[in-house]
Amino acid sequence: MAPQYAPSLRSRLPPLLLFLQTGFIVIYAFYTDIEGYVKERDGNTFSNFYPEFQDVNVMVILGFGFLWTFLVRYGFSGAGFNLLVAVVATQCAVILNGIDSWYYRGKIRINLRSLVDAEMCAASALISIGAVLGKTNPVQLVLMALLEVSGFVLNEWLLHTLLKVRPLKDMRLHIFGAFFGLMLTWILHRDGSKQQFEKEKFGRKTGLFSMLGSIFLWMFWPSFNSVLVDAHTPGRKLDAVCSTYLALAVSAVTAAALSVLSSPKGKVNLIHMHSCILAGGVAVGVSISGVHQPWEAMAIGFTAAVVSTIGFRYLKNHMLRAFQCHDTCAILSTHGLPGLLGWLAQLLLQIRDCDNHTMAIRFAVVHICTVLFTISLSVAMGIITGLLLKWNIWRPSQDRKCFDDQAFWEDVPHLKICNFQGL
Amino acid sequence: MAPQYAPSLRSRLPPLLLFLQTGFIVIYAFYTDIEGYVKERDGNTFSNFYPEFQDVNVMVILGFGFLWTFLVRYGFSGAGFNLLVAVVATQCAVILNGIDSWYYRGKIRINLRSLVDAEMCAASALISIGAVLGKTNPVQLVLMALLEVSGFVLNEWLLHTLLKVRPLKDMRLHIFGAFFGLMLTWILHRDGSKQQFEKEKFGRKTGLFSMLGSIFLWMFWPSFNSVLVDAHTPGRKLDAVCSTYLALAVSAVTAAALSVLSSPKGKVNLIHMHSCILAGGVAVGVSISGVHQPWEAMAIGFTAAVVSTIGFRYLKNHMLRAFQCHDTCAILSTHGLPGLLGWLAQLLLQIRDCDNHTMAIRFAVVHICTVLFTISLSVAMGIITGLLLKWNIWRPSQDRKCFDDQAFWEDVPHLKICNFQGL
Amino acid sequence: MAPQYAPSLRSRLPPLLLFLQTGFIVIYAFYTDIEGYVKERDGNTFSNFYPEFQDVNVMVILGFGFLWTFLVRYGFSGAGFNLLVAVVATQCAVILNGIDSWYYRGKIRINLRSLVDAEMCAASALISIGAVLGKTNPVQLVLMALLEVSGFVLNEWLLHTLLKVRPLKDMRLHIFGAFFGLMLTWILHRDGSKQQFEKEKFGRKTGLFSMLGSIFLWMFWPSFNSVLVDAHTPGRKLDAVCSTYLALAVSAVTAAALSVLSSPKGKVNLIHMHSCILAGGVAVGVSISGVHQPWEAMAIGFTAAVVSTIGFRYLKNHMLRAFQCHDTCAILSTHGLPGLLGWLAQLLLQIRDCDNHTMAIRFAVVHICTVLFTISLSVAMGIITGLLLKWNIWRPSQDRKCFDDQAFWEDVPHLKICNFQGL
Repeated sequence: MAPQYAPSLRSRLPPLLLFLQTGFIVIYAFYTDIEGYVKERDGNTFSNFYPEFQDVNVMVILGFGFLWTFLVRYGFSGAGFNLLVAVVATQCAVILNGIDSWYYRGKIRINLRSLVDAEMCAASALISIGAVLGKTNPVQLVLMALLEVSGFVLNEWLLHTLLKVRPLKDMRLHIFGAFFGLMLTWILHRDGSKQQFEKEKFGRKTGLFSMLGSIFLWMFWPSFNSVLVDAHTPGRKLDAVCSTYLALAVSAVTAAALSVLSSPKGKVNLIHMHSCILAGGVAVGVSISGVHQPWEAMAIGFTAAVVSTIGFRYLKNHMLRAFQCHDTCAILSTHGLPGLLGWLAQLLLQIRDCDNHTMAIRFAVVHICTVLFTISLSVAMGIITGLLLKWNIWRPSQDRKCFDDQAFWEDVPHLKICNFQGL
Repeated sequence: MAPQYAPSLRSRLPPLLLFLQTGFIVIYAFYTDIEGYVKERDGNTFSNFYPEFQDVNVMVILGFGFLWTFLVRYGFSGAGFNLLVAVVATQCAVILNGIDSWYYRGKIRINLRSLVDAEMCAASALISIGAVLGKTNPVQLVLMALLEVSGFVLNEWLLHTLLKVRPLKDMRLHIFGAFFGLMLTWILHRDGSKQQFEKEKFGRKTGLFSMLGSIFLWMFWPSFNSVLVDAHTPGRKLDAVCSTYLALAVSAVTAAALSVLSSPKGKVNLIHMHSCILAGGVAVGVSISGVHQPWEAMAIGFTAAVVSTIGFRYLKNHMLRAFQCHDTCAILSTHGLPGLLGWLAQLLLQIRDCDNHTMAIRFAVVHICTVLFTISLSVAMGIITGLLLKWNIWRPSQDRKCFDDQAFWEDVPHLKICNFQGL
Repeated sequence: MAPQYAPSLRSRLPPLLLFLQTGFIVIYAFYTDIEGYVKERDGNTFSNFYPEFQDVNVMVILGFGFLWTFLVRYGFSGAGFNLLVAVVATQCAVILNGIDSWYYRGKIRINLRSLVDAEMCAASALISIGAVLGKTNPVQLVLMALLEVSGFVLNEWLLHTLLKVRPLKDMRLHIFGAFFGLMLTWILHRDGSKQQFEKEKFGRKTGLFSMLGSIFLWMFWPSFNSVLVDAHTPGRKLDAVCSTYLALAVSAVTAAALSVLSSPKGKVNLIHMHSCILAGGVAVGVSISGVHQPWEAMAIGFTAAVVSTIGFRYLKNHMLRAFQCHDTCAILSTHGLPGLLGWLAQLLLQIRDCDNHTMAIRFAVVHICTVLFTISLSVAMGIITGLLLKWNIWRPSQDRKCFDDQAFWEDVPHLKICNFQGL
C-alpha cells in the first residue's frame, strides 16, 4: 500500500501550496504597501524592535520546529513541516490582520510590527499542530493552519466588536491554540492509529535536538512577551522582560523537582524538561499586563510549572482513554492549563489593583466573558476544522504511516524496529 | 596507505596556519587602528548595528558550518573547517578591504562595519567551498579562501576603477562565489573520486544538524541583506528586512511544492528543503536596491525557488556527467542561478524606475558589464586557483579518503558501511 | 544496586529544589523591586542592552549546556542539569549581588543589569561544574553552585573592602571558577571511578552538539566581554567587541594548528576545537580594560590558544596521575591558564600605559594582590565545598553510574558498550 500513498501527496500538496502562494503574491501585489517607518504610535524604533522581532522569529521557526523533533522517527517532518506551516500561516495572517487597515486606508501596511503580529498568529497555529503532530499529512497541516489563523483573527475582531476589548495577542494565543488543537485531535482520532503509538517514544539522539528547540523557546520567551508591549510607557517593556525571565527560571526548577517527585523510578523525564520549563513563560505571557512585581511572576511561574508537570504525567493517558483524545505534544499541559492559570492570575491581580468595587466587578465580567468567548470560538472552529480535515479528499495518513518520516521524505529508510530500540 | 597520509597534514597545515596567523598579527600591529565610533557616514549606531553584526556572524560561522554537516561521514569537517576558513578569510579580508583606507590615512580602520564587510567576503569564500566540500584537505581550503577573497576584493576595486560603480557586497558575493567554486571543482575533478560518492549520501542524524544550519541562514538572512544598507534614508533598512523576509517565506513554500512535484516518489527531498528555501534570500539580496514593493520581492523569491529546485533536481547529475564538474552542495542551484536571477530582476526593476530612455540604457549597459566582468574574473580566478591547488605539494586527499572525517579528526572510527545503511 | 539508587535522587533533589525555590520567591516578595528604567549611570539603554543580555543568556544556557554534551552517554544530563544549575545560581546571585543595594535602599533592584550580573556569577559556577561533570549528582551540583556563587560574591565584596578595587566580573570569573572546580574535583576524587573513564570518550553524534555549544560561546563571546563595559565612554564597548572578536579568530586558527602539531597522528582533535578556540575570549575578557589596539588582543589570543592547546594535550593526564585530580572538561586549560595569562597581559599593558613609576608599582602591587587573593579564596572555598559534598548524605553517584544519563533520566536504556563503539 505504501507506493499508493506517495502519489497522493504529489497530487495534493504542490497544487495547494502553489495555489496559495500565487494567490498571496497577487493579493500582496494589489493590496499591500511597505511602510517605511517603524516609529509608530507605540514608540518602538527599528533598533529596539528588530532584535526582538528576530528573537520571535527564532522561536517560531526554530524553537517550535526543533521542539517537535523528539519523536523517534519524525524529526525531519517536525522541523520541516513546521517551517512550511509557519510561513504559510504568517503570509495569510498578514493579510487577515490587515483587513481593517485595508478598509480604512486602501492598503495593508507591511512593517516589522505587522510581521510580528502575523508570527504570533502563526505561533497559535503551531501550538494547535502540536496536538495532531504525526497523525496528519502536510496538506491537512496547511489547511488547519489557515483555518486556525482565520479563527484567531476572527476572535480578535469579535472581541473588539462585541466586548470592546483588545487583549494582546500573546494573551489569547495559547488558550485559543490549545483548545483548537484538542478538538481537532479529538475529531480526527481513529482507533487504528493506536498501535503506532510505539513510534511516539522519544529518540535518544533526537532528544537533544528537541532540547535545543525547547531551550531556544525558553531563552527568547522574554522577547515573545515583551515585543508587543507598548514602548511609550517607560519600563513596561523591561518589566515584561524581567518578569518573564524570572518566571521561566522558577518554572525550570519546579518542573525538574516535580518530574522527579512524580516519577515511579525517581528520575527526571526528558519530555517534562522540554515542555514544562516553558509553563512559566506561557502563564506570565497571558497575565503580563497585571504583573508588576518580580515575585508575582515567580509565583505564577511556580504554579504553572506544578500544574503543567502534574498534568503532563497524569492527564495525557487519561484523556486518551477517557475521551479518545490523543494529544501528541501534550499541548493541554504545556499551553492550555498554564494559559488558563495565567488568565486567572491576571483576573486576581487586576481586581486587586482596581480602586473601587464597581470597576473590579466590571473588569471581572469582561475578563471572564473574554476567556469564555475565546474558548468557545476555539472549540467551535476546532470541531469544524476537524470535520473538514476528516474528509478523505485530503488522503489522511494511513495508520501505519503515522509518526514516520518515511511517508513524506525521500531517502529515509524503512523502519527497522530493532535499530531503534537502542537509540 | 592511510598512515602515510596523516603526517602530511601535520607537515602542511600547522606551518601554513601559524605563518598566516603571525603574519596577520604583524600586519595588524603596524597598520591597523581601532576606530572608536560606529556612527559613521551611513547613520548606523552601535545599538542598531551590533545585533545585525551578530546575526551575520551567526550565519557565517554557524549557518554555513552546520549546513555542511549533511554528508553522512563529514560532519566534523563541515562544521570545523568552516570555522577555520571563515576566520582566516575574515582576517585577510579586513586587511585587503582596508588597503585604500591605509593608502589615504596610513592606517586600516577596524570597526564593526569593517568586520561585517570582511565577513561578507568570507561568506563568498564559503560559498565556493561548498562546491569542493569533501574533496579537498584543509590546507587547500585555506589557500582557496585566501585567493577567493583576494579575487573578490580585486573585483570590487576593478569595478570601481573601470566602471565607476560600487555595488553592495551582497550583490556580487553569490555570483562570484558560485562561479569561482564551479571552476575550481571542475579543475580539481579526478575520475577516481567517483567511487566515493556513495559517502555523499546525507545522514539521517546529521540531516537535522544540516536543517539547523539551514534554518539559521533562513532566519537571519534579512539581517544579511540589510546590514550594509545605508541607514540614513529612513526606512530603506526596514524595506530590505521585510522584502527579504517575504521572499524567504515564498521560497520555502515554493521549494517544498516543487520538490514534491519533481520527485519520482512524490516525496519531499531533505536537501532541497536545506538549500532551495534560501534561494529567495539570495535573489532578493542581489536585487535589493531595485525592490520597493513586497510583491516584487515575493515574485522574485517564487521564481528563484522554482529555478533553484528544478536546477537541484536535474542539473547536478547532468553537470557531473557532461562537464565532469562535481558540485557537492549544488552551489550553482543554490547561489549561482538565484544570483543571476536577482541581477536580471534588478535590471528590469531599475529600468522600469528610470525616468527617461537614455538613463535606462546607460544603466542597463553598466549593469550588464558589471555582471559579465564579475563572472569573467570569478571564472579566471577559479581556474588559476584550481591549477595551483592541483599541485601535489598540498598533498590532496586520496580518493578513498574523500568525504570522510576519519582522515582529519582523531578518534573517528573507520568507516563501517554496514553501520551507515540505517542512519 | 541500581534500583536502590533511584529513590535517593527522589528523596533529595525535589525537597532541595522546592525548598530553595519557595525560599527565593519569599525573599523576592519581601526584598526586591523591579526598577523601571535601564538607563542608568553607565549609559546603557534598553535597545543597546537587551540584545547583549540575550547573547549572554544564550551563552550561559545554551553554550555551556551543549558544550557539555560531548560525553558519549551524558548528553541529556549535560544540557539539562546545566539549565537547572544556571537558573538556581542566577536567582541566588541576584539576591547576593543586591545585598548592598538592600542595605542602603531597603530593596534589591531587579533590572536587566542585575540579571546580567547574576548570569555572570552563574557562568562562574558553570565553569567549576565542568571539572566535576559526570561524577556528581544534581543535588551536589546545585549545592556546589550555591556555594560557588556565594564565594564569588564574597570575593568581590572583600576585594572592594580590603583592596578598594572593583574589577569587572568577567575579569575574575574564569580564574575563580577554574580553581574552585579543580579543588573540588581533587577532594571528590575516588579511585574507584577510574574504570568508568571509558565512558568519557566523546560520542560521534553528540560531538556535533558539543560543537554547536562551543560555536555559540565563540560567536557571542564579544557580547560577554562588552556587556558590562561602561557605555558612557564612547567607543569602549566597540573596542571590547572588536578586540574579543579578533582574539577569538586568532585563537581558532592557532588552536587548530597546535592541535594537529601536537597530535601523534597529525590530526585535529575535536575536543580541542571545542575548548581551545575559546581561550582568546577568556584571556581578552580578563585583560579587556588594558587592551587598546587590535594587535594586542590578537597577540593575547594567540598565546592563550597555544597555552590552552598544549595544556589540554599534556596537562590533563598528568594532573590525573600526579595529583589525583580528574578534570572532565579540562577547565584548567580552557579557563584557568588563559585567565592567568589574561591577568598577566593586563598587568603588562597597564604598566606600559602608566605615566610614572610610582603609579605603575602601585598598580602592579594591587593587581597582583587581587589575583592572589582571588585564587586563595577560590581554593579555600573549593576545598570547603568539596569536603561538604563528600558527605554521604547527598548520596553521591556510584562509580559505575558515573558519566551515564541512565542514572538520572527516564527511558534511557542501559549501556550496551557494543553499540557505542561505532558512534
